[in-house]
Amino acid sequence: MINVKEAKELIQENCSTLKVVKLPLLEANGSILAEPVYAVMDTPPFHQSAMDGYVFSFENWDKESDLKVIGEIQTGSYSNTIVQPNEAVRIYTGAPIPPGTDTVVMQEKVNREGNALQILDAALVATANVRPQSSQTQKGELALQSGQLLTPVAISFLAGIGINKVSVFSKPTVSIIVTGKELAGADDEISEGKIFESNSIGLIAALQQLGIDPVSVEVVDDVEEEIEKSITNQLSSDILILTGGVSVGDYDLVPASLEKCGVQKIFHKIKQKPGKPFYFGRHNQTLVFALPGNPAAVMSCFYEYVVQAIGSFTQKEYFKKIALPLTEDFNKKAGLTFFLKGKIGDNNVTVLNNQESYKLNSFAVADCLIEFDEEGEYFKKGDLVNLRMIL
Amino acid sequence: MINVKEAKELIQENCSTLKVVKLPLLEANGSILAEPVYAVMDTPPFHQSAMDGYVFSFENWDKESDLKVIGEIQTGSYSNTIVQPNEAVRIYTGAPIPPGTDTVVMQEKVNREGNALQILDAALVATANVRPQSSQTQKGELALQSGQLLTPVAISFLAGIGINKVSVFSKPTVSIIVTGKELAGADDEISEGKIFESNSIGLIAALQQLGIDPVSVEVVDDVEEEIEKSITNQLSSDILILTGGVSVGDYDLVPASLEKCGVQKIFHKIKQKPGKPFYFGRHNQTLVFALPGNPAAVMSCFYEYVVQAIGSFTQKEYFKKIALPLTEDFNKKAGLTFFLKGKIGDNNVTVLNNQESYKLNSFAVADCLIEFDEEGEYFKKGDLVNLRMIL
Repeated sequence: MINVKEAKELIQENCSTLKVVKLPLLEANGSILAEPVYAVMDTPPFHQSAMDGYVFSFENWDKESDLKVIGEIQTGSYSNTIVQPNEAVRIYTGAPIPPGTDTVVMQEKVNREGNALQILDAALVATANVRPQSSQTQKGELALQSGQLLTPVAISFLAGIGINKVSVFSKPTVSIIVTGKELAGADDEISEGKIFESNSIGLIAALQQLGIDPVSVEVVDDVEEEIEKSITNQLSSDILILTGGVSVGDYDLVPASLEKCGVQKIFHKIKQKPGKPFYFGRHNQTLVFALPGNPAAVMSCFYEYVVQAIGSFTQKEYFKKIALPLTEDFNKKAGLTFFLKGKIGDNNVTVLNNQESYKLNSFAVADCLIEFDEEGEYFKKGDLVNLRMIL
Repeated sequence: MINVKEAKELIQENCSTLKVVKLPLLEANGSILAEPVYAVMDTPPFHQSAMDGYVFSFENWDKESDLKVIGEIQTGSYSNTIVQPNEAVRIYTGAPIPPGTDTVVMQEKVNREGNALQILDAALVATANVRPQSSQTQKGELALQSGQLLTPVAISFLAGIGINKVSVFSKPTVSIIVTGKELAGADDEISEGKIFESNSIGLIAALQQLGIDPVSVEVVDDVEEEIEKSITNQLSSDILILTGGVSVGDYDLVPASLEKCGVQKIFHKIKQKPGKPFYFGRHNQTLVFALPGNPAAVMSCFYEYVVQAIGSFTQKEYFKKIALPLTEDFNKKAGLTFFLKGKIGDNNVTVLNNQESYKLNSFAVADCLIEFDEEGEYFKKGDLVNLRMIL
């Protein structure tokens, strides 16, 4: 049986395919740029007034006479009339300054009578209150590097410099197959021996938060033909997640069904708790994660392994790992890595109660998964432990 | 003119209305519970085997004889046949244990020949490998508290205990009106004096990341009638965001238009940079944020003030504030709070270049907004500064 570190390495090795997709800006929100973006234009595209005021040539002004106001340029308009020395034009924030001018005086710092304009700004210097053409981006210049996260502001920046589509690393497509004869749907009347199916709901919710809508969700009985049919249907997704039926019981049909469908096993079972019977395989470019059916094992394996693969597609890190000191002692046997539900406090972390893998009541209020090393046995209050923040 | 602290207090005072909505689980993903959730059933709903193995009565077993296997219970099935002393039933993980039994022995720890079952587990104790009925939730018991964040795991937990709908704090509906005669659409040929409109794209992207799709986005000219018509159309949203036209120039028509539409001004102008001309008002329950038109001012005011209002609706904190030491000295004049684009490093923060409010090239790669106090002037390398993480 391999350990957690080996499992993560094997998953990484099989996540080599990056897919690049060209998307309209808003669809690329939150994605990582797969190519550098070069400016296709100067921005501002012209020398632009930074104020509501008056524009004139500071250099050619005799510094003593009043200026003569000869016209107005509203934002969104322009004028090609050359402005002569000692002439000025009324101008507004964002409007292009006309030829023959270089400086804007704020409207609050003048005295205007008719067309005679007196400048009251003793500190005014040449080129004041003008945003030079191409001072944000110069045509042909690198605007954003490959690997850059497209934040909302980055999206706005690109829209402003005339970029409408960008090449980003594609999110994987994901299918989910939940197996189990005992599973009742939310609208079913629950009968003896049945429980409400919740694994698909948890996985869909977790994928939604990563911006992924699963392409297909199927709930199937513990019957070989049904499982195989379902697997065959879903092998065109980038990632296929199954839950249940991966242990060694008479009705644990998933590993054999995967094999029949041509999925190559990479590993089966990890030295960890919960989620020991975890299976990982591959069919062409499709990664197959078969998770044990207990709800806490499903979500724990999702955050530790499936998210790793998703991040390899999108080139994003989703749930950061940090180290914090324990609030209480914790003991375990050596031989398995434990992933335990925790709650982050004021610079420390507490192991929650109810860690059994069939229970979710603590996991539901947890904000992290604490990783207790395979070989460790005695963890003392104050010891630093690694944890993955899952919020 | 009021300062940043006063502005935030006035916004908070006007955010008093909480709306509660009952949603199907997956639509409530990421929301905050507005009411406690009580378990409607015991989970597990029955005493359940935790293993593939054999179930029998430990108490009534003579500890010497072999057990006699009398049947099988598959997961999802059940049996009401009372199991007699020294009898056992083949059972699978998750299946209900039958009457007369209390203990499960793992299949790996028996020797079975025909129907004769020898127990090889010397350490076995009564009730081993059985998950007691109601050990996760007991009918009527508190399952999740009001105020709890509905994480994907919480959603899965609730689905598993038979809850399909939950009452959560509603996200606000948001409308956007972008004003400016100079604005060209992404598909337009840009002509002299025009720039590409990007504020609506940035705001939509930022709202998307908070799970909000704006109900309406309008781009209007600097013409009073158009602005007023647009405002009147959008006053049914919980939050109305406008950009541009809030300063004091001849074409800054937004404040007067809002007044004509019956919006009550709460404040206009804040002692801050960027975004000094920021306007906040209210029309019945609709909050109106009129932001200055420069792209960096728009996004900065969005993260500082609009997000505050959204969080008041949803009861969530979206972008945490932390304090980190500066990597370099920074000087400013007293009198205005500065919100500057920053980059978080290894336990420190750096002020980026290109802070002018018409530029987004630094903001596009920033991960935080650093707040430099209104009265502060000289900030030294190593000084702790407050910052808001915007990723």
